[in-house]
Amino acid sequence: MGELLVVGSVALDSVKTPFGEVDEVVGGSATFFCTAASFFTDVQLVAVVGEDFSSDHLAVLARDRVDLTGLERKPGRTFRWKGEYSYKLNEAKTLDTQLNVFETFHPVIPESYRTPSQLFLANIDPELQMLVLEQVQRPSVVALDTMNFWIEGKIAGLRRVLKEADILIINDGEAQALGDNRNLVQVARIIQSWGPKTLIIKRGEYGVVMFHGGTMFALPAFPLDQLKDPTGAGDAFAGGFMGFLASAPTPDEASLRQAVVYGSVMASFAVQSFSTDRLAAVTQEEIAQRYEAFRELTTF
Amino acid sequence: MGELLVVGSVALDSVKTPFGEVDEVVGGSATFFCTAASFFTDVQLVAVVGEDFSSDHLAVLARDRVDLTGLERKPGRTFRWKGEYSYKLNEAKTLDTQLNVFETFHPVIPESYRTPSQLFLANIDPELQMLVLEQVQRPSVVALDTMNFWIEGKIAGLRRVLKEADILIINDGEAQALGDNRNLVQVARIIQSWGPKTLIIKRGEYGVVMFHGGTMFALPAFPLDQLKDPTGAGDAFAGGFMGFLASAPTPDEASLRQAVVYGSVMASFAVQSFSTDRLAAVTQEEIAQRYEAFRELTTF
Repeated sequence: MGELLVVGSVALDSVKTPFGEVDEVVGGSATFFCTAASFFTDVQLVAVVGEDFSSDHLAVLARDRVDLTGLERKPGRTFRWKGEYSYKLNEAKTLDTQLNVFETFHPVIPESYRTPSQLFLANIDPELQMLVLEQVQRPSVVALDTMNFWIEGKIAGLRRVLKEADILIINDGEAQALGDNRNLVQVARIIQSWGPKTLIIKRGEYGVVMFHGGTMFALPAFPLDQLKDPTGAGDAFAGGFMGFLASAPTPDEASLRQAVVYGSVMASFAVQSFSTDRLAAVTQEEIAQRYEAFRELTTF
Repeated sequence: MGELLVVGSVALDSVKTPFGEVDEVVGGSATFFCTAASFFTDVQLVAVVGEDFSSDHLAVLARDRVDLTGLERKPGRTFRWKGEYSYKLNEAKTLDTQLNVFETFHPVIPESYRTPSQLFLANIDPELQMLVLEQVQRPSVVALDTMNFWIEGKIAGLRRVLKEADILIINDGEAQALGDNRNLVQVARIIQSWGPKTLIIKRGEYGVVMFHGGTMFALPAFPLDQLKDPTGAGDAFAGGFMGFLASAPTPDEASLRQAVVYGSVMASFAVQSFSTDRLAAVTQEEIAQRYEAFRELTTF
């Protein structure tokens, strides 16, 4: 049986929030994704780091169920991102981006990764997302993320990948930009007509709404009394979502809804610390407890 | 048995949204509240209008289960509000406010209204809210709304009414201003310590979160493919919420949660037209159907 393959970024993040500040901690979409997914399934990582990525940094990625065969080390420096959040925690202000080795990232899928059961294409150039798809046997589920930069600059390439995708996971502003429409129900119909049967729209502190075929599912985010850093919440969501889905017998409506809850559970842990500190240390029991807390939060 | 008493405003609204425009249609907090509540229980209205409030206007308020004994007609013009919404529908831009007869509103509770089972104090001066409380026998449930204007200008008076209240229903920005804190869980603890055991925070298109004692309940708003005018959504929510609660045997946790859903059902109809056009014309069957649609939307 194949595994869950993710292609994305590994970065060194410097982040300031009203609750603290960290310098060059391990971040990036693939990092948060793998950490969250590894609680549910085996994960294969494809990403690139520079020569400055230390053994301490590597230790953050190295987990029992994470295969690092596809982590390429290239001459140069690791991708760096510096950002700041105000009290309105759902909007990061980017202070500095240094793509470094990520700028020429050209994902090569190792031989042992070429029959994934599920594939998550994190937010990278749609042409690279397509390149990944061409290197693997068609997985049973292909999901992807993207961002306004590609929506504005590479819409044709993005539409080509979307045609091949089962699931698109993006935030509300991106969905509105992609569908060129403010109404999410109308946006969903437009995007679904382009390929992905399932559209998952992340709304930060307000939760998630999923459009799957003709159905809708909405889940509020878990109200927390302490948040530290929202960085990576969306990728932790995707990791929990895809990880659970990979462990489910079939990606049917019921599994997709449960996957949205597990994704939200992992995101709720991710925001409780900087980097993956809290997320990585969570226990299966804590995951089960928060899943039940979501049920209590939403049942009537 | 007593009834549901509401004290609030009746206005003539001129509203422009991306989906149309209306001139001097019947609006105001008490109007939306009564219309929504009347599907669940008998409602007693206390409000003031001017000499220009026509029989056509009155016909909008006059409903089978709405008692208009407390609708005072005073010399002068009816309260007028003029506002505009951009595509970001959760923020109204006020273009003009003419308080007119509402400026000197001094609610007098008719004899026949003095033993209400439940009381909703819509958004008016906290001192007037207190004045209403003093005129009635203590109802089993007292709920109130307020706004930033009173939070900033009359906090002492507001704190006095809050001490007497069971339920506070406000939007998220108001809750954050009142609790002087961005975190809603912390805000809830602060406001609960001042009196109301139940805090309901409206988040516009994102739905509602309720803090009741030590529990939390969150409900997304219903994703609609057509919205016309968000004016009155919050008051229609309060009307559906209080109306259902008045019809429930006890205001326990289960009833409160169902009341939040019925409130959200009525709000979802209110935004589908200008004024109360859609809300007033809804059927019991449509209410039941949308309640079930909320269940499908949120169940996992």
